[in-house]
Amino acid sequence: MEKMPGMEKMPDMEKGVHYQVTFLPDKIQMKVPAGMSVLAAAAEAGVELEGPCGGKGTCGKCRVKLVEEKGEEWVRACQTPVNRDLMVEIPQAEVSVQRKSDLSRRAVPVDLASGIEKVKLKVTPPSLEHQVADADRFLSALDREDVKLSLEALRALPRALRRADGLVSAVLCEDEVLTVEAGDTTERLYGLAVDIGTTTVVAALVDLRQGETLATASASNTQNIFGADVIARIEHATQKAKGLEQLQQRILQVIRKLVARLAAETGVKEEEIYQVTVVGNTTMSHLFLAVDPANLAPSPFIPGFSRMVSLKAKELGLNTAPQAQVYVLPNIAGYVGADTVGVILATELDKKEGVNLAVDIGTNGEIVLAAHGKIWSCSTAAGPAFEGAQIEFGMRAATGAIEKVKITDEGLQLQVIGDSEPKGICGSGLLDLVAELVRTGIVEESGRMLGAEEGDDLPPVLRQRLSRAGSGNSFVLAEAGAGRKDDVVLTQKDVRELQLAKAAMRAGIEILLSTAGIRYHDLDQVLLAGAFGNYVDKYSALAMGLLPPVAAEKIQSVGNAAGAGAQLALISRSVREHSMEIARKVVHVELSSRSDFQDKFVDALSLTQGL
Amino acid sequence: MEKMPGMEKMPDMEKGVHYQVTFLPDKIQMKVPAGMSVLAAAAEAGVELEGPCGGKGTCGKCRVKLVEEKGEEWVRACQTPVNRDLMVEIPQAEVSVQRKSDLSRRAVPVDLASGIEKVKLKVTPPSLEHQVADADRFLSALDREDVKLSLEALRALPRALRRADGLVSAVLCEDEVLTVEAGDTTERLYGLAVDIGTTTVVAALVDLRQGETLATASASNTQNIFGADVIARIEHATQKAKGLEQLQQRILQVIRKLVARLAAETGVKEEEIYQVTVVGNTTMSHLFLAVDPANLAPSPFIPGFSRMVSLKAKELGLNTAPQAQVYVLPNIAGYVGADTVGVILATELDKKEGVNLAVDIGTNGEIVLAAHGKIWSCSTAAGPAFEGAQIEFGMRAATGAIEKVKITDEGLQLQVIGDSEPKGICGSGLLDLVAELVRTGIVEESGRMLGAEEGDDLPPVLRQRLSRAGSGNSFVLAEAGAGRKDDVVLTQKDVRELQLAKAAMRAGIEILLSTAGIRYHDLDQVLLAGAFGNYVDKYSALAMGLLPPVAAEKIQSVGNAAGAGAQLALISRSVREHSMEIARKVVHVELSSRSDFQDKFVDALSLTQGL
Repeated sequence: MEKMPGMEKMPDMEKGVHYQVTFLPDKIQMKVPAGMSVLAAAAEAGVELEGPCGGKGTCGKCRVKLVEEKGEEWVRACQTPVNRDLMVEIPQAEVSVQRKSDLSRRAVPVDLASGIEKVKLKVTPPSLEHQVADADRFLSALDREDVKLSLEALRALPRALRRADGLVSAVLCEDEVLTVEAGDTTERLYGLAVDIGTTTVVAALVDLRQGETLATASASNTQNIFGADVIARIEHATQKAKGLEQLQQRILQVIRKLVARLAAETGVKEEEIYQVTVVGNTTMSHLFLAVDPANLAPSPFIPGFSRMVSLKAKELGLNTAPQAQVYVLPNIAGYVGADTVGVILATELDKKEGVNLAVDIGTNGEIVLAAHGKIWSCSTAAGPAFEGAQIEFGMRAATGAIEKVKITDEGLQLQVIGDSEPKGICGSGLLDLVAELVRTGIVEESGRMLGAEEGDDLPPVLRQRLSRAGSGNSFVLAEAGAGRKDDVVLTQKDVRELQLAKAAMRAGIEILLSTAGIRYHDLDQVLLAGAFGNYVDKYSALAMGLLPPVAAEKIQSVGNAAGAGAQLALISRSVREHSMEIARKVVHVELSSRSDFQDKFVDALSLTQGL
Repeated sequence: MEKMPGMEKMPDMEKGVHYQVTFLPDKIQMKVPAGMSVLAAAAEAGVELEGPCGGKGTCGKCRVKLVEEKGEEWVRACQTPVNRDLMVEIPQAEVSVQRKSDLSRRAVPVDLASGIEKVKLKVTPPSLEHQVADADRFLSALDREDVKLSLEALRALPRALRRADGLVSAVLCEDEVLTVEAGDTTERLYGLAVDIGTTTVVAALVDLRQGETLATASASNTQNIFGADVIARIEHATQKAKGLEQLQQRILQVIRKLVARLAAETGVKEEEIYQVTVVGNTTMSHLFLAVDPANLAPSPFIPGFSRMVSLKAKELGLNTAPQAQVYVLPNIAGYVGADTVGVILATELDKKEGVNLAVDIGTNGEIVLAAHGKIWSCSTAAGPAFEGAQIEFGMRAATGAIEKVKITDEGLQLQVIGDSEPKGICGSGLLDLVAELVRTGIVEESGRMLGAEEGDDLPPVLRQRLSRAGSGNSFVLAEAGAGRKDDVVLTQKDVRELQLAKAAMRAGIEILLSTAGIRYHDLDQVLLAGAFGNYVDKYSALAMGLLPPVAAEKIQSVGNAAGAGAQLALISRSVREHSMEIARKVVHVELSSRSDFQDKFVDALSLTQGL
């Protein structure tokens, strides 16, 4: 049995003793060694359960219900050892569904030719004098050169031909008949665009006839049970016996769930989804296909593949039409993936006039600079601070997260998601907060936070918030009280985390600019992609020097551009072809090979606008 | 729960009561209603077990071992109701393996280009300055236009490239890289040719470099648990809820077992089998692919497909290389399948000078006539008499089967397979026997057998064998005695079965000859294909009028020509292409649409040489 996350923390295991864990509602059973955590057992059993903190016991996302004779009890799976036979109920994982995405009106006009078409046909019946096989009569009616029948089409034919007097609809993908449906179903033609994030997976159900998005659904990437970032996932894939398979199965499980929800929501049948596009960072693309990502981690950071991969849904076990063609968009380099290609597609960065910078801030920050017909990209390991992780009271942008902060003479103005009591702080709130603390002198430009004894010049409403939490200075955001055991604070260490993340991002931007010979005032536009980019306050980002000093009106949020790019590639073959051109054309700048990166990084540590 | 074979015979089932059956050695468990037969339970559970008589309790092939506390007991599964929890051990099914088939020296010279090739490559390592993905460096080294990587190749690459310093062997099938192996493995390139018979499945492992057959293996088609002939199988596929799936899984199970045995025998790894060809009658081809055969049974006998079907081994779950290309050779009509195409390929009937007739005698008899550049085919439902089935003491050509018979003044001379005591009679023995009985006057040309009281003119050694068995006259072949409870006899009914089978075959031959305008003396050669054709005594066949009256030297056995055809198609792409031409070119004559068939049939009932 492999060592699993959370296992390290368990008391000594009784050697050789095993217990049975039964996971509800699916009644999946697993015998595990005594002392293994319930989280590790769930991971072994392939049970859907998330754990974004990687078994550290801090995120509380792995809560499960122990069902016992004496009653039920909620526990954190990562902190609960299996020390007897257990019945464990896994809560239904959250899926958010949105009807008609905001992307349904395409900003980018594309050639609406998805590559999938449906053709209505009337096939002549056979007779004793005309003993022609179903497939042959069908192909005669279709009357196209060099068309191949998929196995599914072959299987569907005998019944479909006889259900509506020979009237059938053929689903064609390029030169292959994917399937054959009885009657005229040409009105129904659907596709799926998937954006696999390290933390969150988003899927959009698209009507391929108009290219309209009917609904989007998102859920956590339950791979997080094996670690929060791509490096932890690569490690798991490489070092655990079935690690790669487990990671692939988890992402497929999430996508299948999203497909089921989208289908239920829209009345589209799963098997009416005939085409799929997928974007993600390079590691996610590898894990989705179960291609060994081992060589992405060490220098020189080599992916197994960069080109677009096309395959059948059934090769992966997706719950769309089994013969649906799945296109995994090309990636650019080891840490600049198909999601960045998606951003370029959706923003048309490569076609825009002038000089344009796009920044996608996440655990990894991807930066793209397009100028005068050329495109450069780089990637920086910013760390998860911008996603609220590894911050004492950091959290994702969910109910209870402080998302905006203003400091006035009256004190702190907090904007909390869901208008609830603050439970923690998310990336945009963190950036706001530190910018305000620097502005008010509570945090110095070097990043040092004032101690409780140093706040003499501050208004009392602020001074009283200076405190000590554990080993360093801290600043109280919200005091313990109703429903909250502890103060919500920002620690000196949190400031350092943000400082490092910000410096990495900014140094990357600087390297790209200098590589391309672009000065700040040459920049026409700075586009912020991704969830963080959507919610960040651009003035805070400028004040902190996360972004280069440009006029605020040049900065624009573009939402989930990676997902939008996947949707464009879904509805247009020419966009897919263009994605390959983009991946080939982008010049990747490997920061770790740049001797000037460390200098820029150190310069960028200062919490000021300039460098 | 469906009604299954053997279930009808069980005592009243206790309603609602279920018992658990555990099948060993695989520990497959199944809860079944009380009273269901063990055979039906095995069928439900997908457990490998054969039953050629279709649950009638006559063949004894479904013997299993009940493992109970008080000891073990052998029982017939079809006659044993589940009336308590049972532990049932399934005996290891028999596989016969032969090293180097007699087909390994090809009679037919072909263009040895299987479509599969292995190319040795040296791929340059990546570097920080040359951050190129594995797939891209590999494809650069391969240096071919428009080559596609399979998912398996993509998955194999990262490891293969790093195991032997970039030296790899690429397996190519047309424009697809099937897989990539570390080091130089170009010496190892294998394929599999499968002949799916209704009764027996034969697989040949072939070295694709020389086109040499390394070994062949054969086993019973365990679909027989659902009925002995194609009509019973079609019925099961059509009328039972998961019937089609069950039939497909059974044939795949048999093939997987043959592959495993062939691999073990030859030292070839299963995943080194990169290509597969399959022949079978049209029903078998449909069941292999799980294409609904429902429309084959009723007039106008329409197959789902006739053309060659190519797909990936993993679409079926074969245990060869998952990306191995599987070619199911084309069929000609509903009852003239790819096996007949194989016979034409192996005998080169379509290329031979003169007028040639090929006859493949089985449960269905397929007849092919080639004359002056044209080919005709037809099929007759001869029934299983020639395979020893539906004959009182009929059996397959196995140990204990009487395979040759001579009658002299001293009495009966029997040649028994395995030189053992006679247990029954197989097809060739049956034909010999009836021919001899007609010659000696014991059976009249009309088929009537003398009664015990009518043998006055016979020598006493024969007269004493005239007897009555049940309702009609019979002839004793071997008396009850050591190890045999009953006399082995030929009954009046047996003669009638043979008469009907022979008349159907002969009438088919006559129809083809008259369609083509060929007279007996125009025939240059009569080829006998299949197991029966291999062992039948041609003089008996002529004497009985099974074959048209030609000089004996014109009659030639060609062995398992269908399987040989599959092997040729495996090693040569041009043979595969030729198979499609053959399937298109053959003019199928549908006997049921011929008004003259009944006349010819009635004429052919007479047990004489002429019509």
